[in-house]
Amino acid sequence: MIRLYDFERSGNCHKVRMMLSMLGIEYERIEIDLAKRDQLQDWFVALNPLHKVPVLDDDGLLLRDSAAILVYLVRKHGKTAWYPDNAPAAAEIQQWLSLSVNEVFNGLASARAIVVFNRDLDYATAVDIAHTALDTMEARLKQHDWLALGRFTIADLACYPYAALVHEGNVDLASYPAVRAWIKRVEDLPGYVPMPGLPYPGD
Amino acid sequence: MIRLYDFERSGNCHKVRMMLSMLGIEYERIEIDLAKRDQLQDWFVALNPLHKVPVLDDDGLLLRDSAAILVYLVRKHGKTAWYPDNAPAAAEIQQWLSLSVNEVFNGLASARAIVVFNRDLDYATAVDIAHTALDTMEARLKQHDWLALGRFTIADLACYPYAALVHEGNVDLASYPAVRAWIKRVEDLPGYVPMPGLPYPGD
Repeated sequence: MIRLYDFERSGNCHKVRMMLSMLGIEYERIEIDLAKRDQLQDWFVALNPLHKVPVLDDDGLLLRDSAAILVYLVRKHGKTAWYPDNAPAAAEIQQWLSLSVNEVFNGLASARAIVVFNRDLDYATAVDIAHTALDTMEARLKQHDWLALGRFTIADLACYPYAALVHEGNVDLASYPAVRAWIKRVEDLPGYVPMPGLPYPGD
Repeated sequence: MIRLYDFERSGNCHKVRMMLSMLGIEYERIEIDLAKRDQLQDWFVALNPLHKVPVLDDDGLLLRDSAAILVYLVRKHGKTAWYPDNAPAAAEIQQWLSLSVNEVFNGLASARAIVVFNRDLDYATAVDIAHTALDTMEARLKQHDWLALGRFTIADLACYPYAALVHEGNVDLASYPAVRAWIKRVEDLPGYVPMPGLPYPGD
């Protein structure tokens, strides 16, 4: 049985909930309320020394990173279309996983965390990184429907939640029409699940 | 022919130079001097909108992220021992690739960039993130010789340079004996290449 340590308003958790829904996998959900600092309790830090959600527990195999969890679920369930293992495809996908972990998280997610959760970070710096992430996505999506390949892959899921939640961080997508069209494409996928703030309320 | 857009003092570039050396691959090296802001020239931004090194050009296939380049090279050259594609192993490795892209880069690498390259970032924040990264690595390496699996993988290469260059950012590894022992293990690998500041001068 899969157990997901989960916070409803976390975009990183949303990626995993979405993948579990797309794969039709039942799971036990354990709420870690970041607002109450549940993630700093000793028992949770023992599960994840980075004290972040999500954490996935698949019969004792513990995984603590949303990109790693996407890789795990897709490979375990043989969905190679969503994460092929040939060299160029795997590398293209890894580029976007890295963007999701660095620029998307430290830009788009941080701007939102400052506004929504009063995180003690510099807003101007976060917005600056957010636009670097959005510029990179817009440049790709002007020419292509999906981020990494000619079809949906885990690259899209990794970058989607914080791009679509950016309105909660007061970052405007007006100058990113290709990103907005891609957001709608992700939201039309079979198995899509909403969360507070999603689907994207614009357009 | 492989072309590497490279900066000698970049730890992210070192990972790629090291992998190319371990695979015995010849390549053409193009110096992008970050100190002279070469990375902001239009022709380079066209190669990588994130204006970062390394960038790998393999007969027209452009890759812009060091983790993605490691994935690409290992898969292309069939070194599955360094990056297996079964679900748990791929996920374990992805966890450390994500750590290398976020906490290692924004902590260990940023502390060094502030000291060495006068980067306009907050030193206390960088050092704080650096210790999060080192704590996570130390916890794993206390029990295991390598980060992701029971042997060397690209996870180790992804995390090595900025961990071992940390002395240039005035971060002390005195309380991280397992990290220091692992650094020596990486430096003893066949094909290891030095760079300014590496191998780690302590111990």
